[in-house]
Amino acid sequence: MKEQIQKIVILGTGNVATHLGQSFRRAGLDVIQVYGRRRSAAARLAGLLGASYTSDLSELNPESDLYLIAVSDDAIASVAEAFPLQDKLLAHTSGSIGLDALSPAGSHSAVFYPLQTFSTGRETDISRVPFCLETKLDADLQKLQGLAARLTTHVYHISSEHRRLLHLAAVFACNFTNHMYAVAEEMITAQGLPFDMLCPLITETAAKALAASPRAAQTGPAVRQNKGVMAKHLELLSGHPDYQKIYEIVSQSIINLQEKD
Amino acid sequence: MKEQIQKIVILGTGNVATHLGQSFRRAGLDVIQVYGRRRSAAARLAGLLGASYTSDLSELNPESDLYLIAVSDDAIASVAEAFPLQDKLLAHTSGSIGLDALSPAGSHSAVFYPLQTFSTGRETDISRVPFCLETKLDADLQKLQGLAARLTTHVYHISSEHRRLLHLAAVFACNFTNHMYAVAEEMITAQGLPFDMLCPLITETAAKALAASPRAAQTGPAVRQNKGVMAKHLELLSGHPDYQKIYEIVSQSIINLQEKD
Repeated sequence: MKEQIQKIVILGTGNVATHLGQSFRRAGLDVIQVYGRRRSAAARLAGLLGASYTSDLSELNPESDLYLIAVSDDAIASVAEAFPLQDKLLAHTSGSIGLDALSPAGSHSAVFYPLQTFSTGRETDISRVPFCLETKLDADLQKLQGLAARLTTHVYHISSEHRRLLHLAAVFACNFTNHMYAVAEEMITAQGLPFDMLCPLITETAAKALAASPRAAQTGPAVRQNKGVMAKHLELLSGHPDYQKIYEIVSQSIINLQEKD
Repeated sequence: MKEQIQKIVILGTGNVATHLGQSFRRAGLDVIQVYGRRRSAAARLAGLLGASYTSDLSELNPESDLYLIAVSDDAIASVAEAFPLQDKLLAHTSGSIGLDALSPAGSHSAVFYPLQTFSTGRETDISRVPFCLETKLDADLQKLQGLAARLTTHVYHISSEHRRLLHLAAVFACNFTNHMYAVAEEMITAQGLPFDMLCPLITETAAKALAASPRAAQTGPAVRQNKGVMAKHLELLSGHPDYQKIYEIVSQSIINLQEKD
């Protein structure tokens, strides 16, 4: 029988640590310990997960099958450097950091990246989340595949290069999309109109893009090259130079993408 | 008893005409005639709706309670000018065209604007769509409110000025959002990665923004001002000057909006 991951130590106490920890627990895995720089944050998450906790890396439980670093990108390298155990499977959860950031940990370094946006207080259906895995050793890949398969049906073996690309694509599809919503929200709420009016449109736009291809689903003045409407919109945006620039550049990009066909 | 709209003539044969026509029919209203410049298109939609059809404005049935112009923005004024009947309730369905475009029709001009994106072959749950109404006369407003209430629970009395603003906000929340999806799609499919990988992220991003406020829900490297990740992303985009510009300008706008707090 193949060796399986059952015991997990989580290093980190933020949204990713919390959501993954809860998902592990629901899947019947044992989160045995939580490490956090701040003792109170480690205690809080450990309490949620029925784990012990520490704020001292030298006190890490050496009996775990996996040590999962779920801290901010900037902090990954320093946690990896200070990681005191030898020959342990050590993975980070970041989209933009290479496998090599964990090299102080030796050959058992890995990536366990969930391609999703996690927020405090919002449940996520982890079974639909794609997990992007990368390891140095095949045996570690098999272990992480087994672990991810307990959470989701969407498990991918992805190189650091492709993972960085996915993370960049996610910035467009998630962070930039959200800013488009935020601009719309600011414009209409400033005039006393409720943001709720845009909800069905936002939901339908996402559903439509997913049902087909976003490129094929493009609508609006830019793709129709309706110059009259576009000029009026730029005029309406005259008090918002940031939004004017976005309007011009995104409209031009829509036109350019269409003309590539 | 208040006079109600029961009989409707639709001028236009595109997506909006088709979706509204079908919604009227499901709500028990009578679409008695379809006008289209192209006879074949008018015949097709009339067939769907159990209506008669014409491609000649002089043959419009004079017995209708409402004449609804659902043609492209550029064509509204010319249809209104050629509209041959007197003292009839005449409405258009556009977000960006003023009420005054219908002034050749006299005082019974109106706007009946559904704030939604409609596509061929996709059902829309019309009961969730906000309808923005505008009329010259109160009596006409009451009639249109009665009509809209047969389709949806979201009926708004909105001025031309506010409607233009909503339409502009919809360009950001729908058209520009879709382009963000399209950029993400192009980037990852070019490397052989499936667009499906981004689906849960896209769905969650929309759901999260609607559950709270998009401004509060903002995540990503820009809002964290993570300059290292942003510089790497711009480097990854070096073959795509359009997307580089979008990346720079949207990131800066995210930072600026955050700093307004």
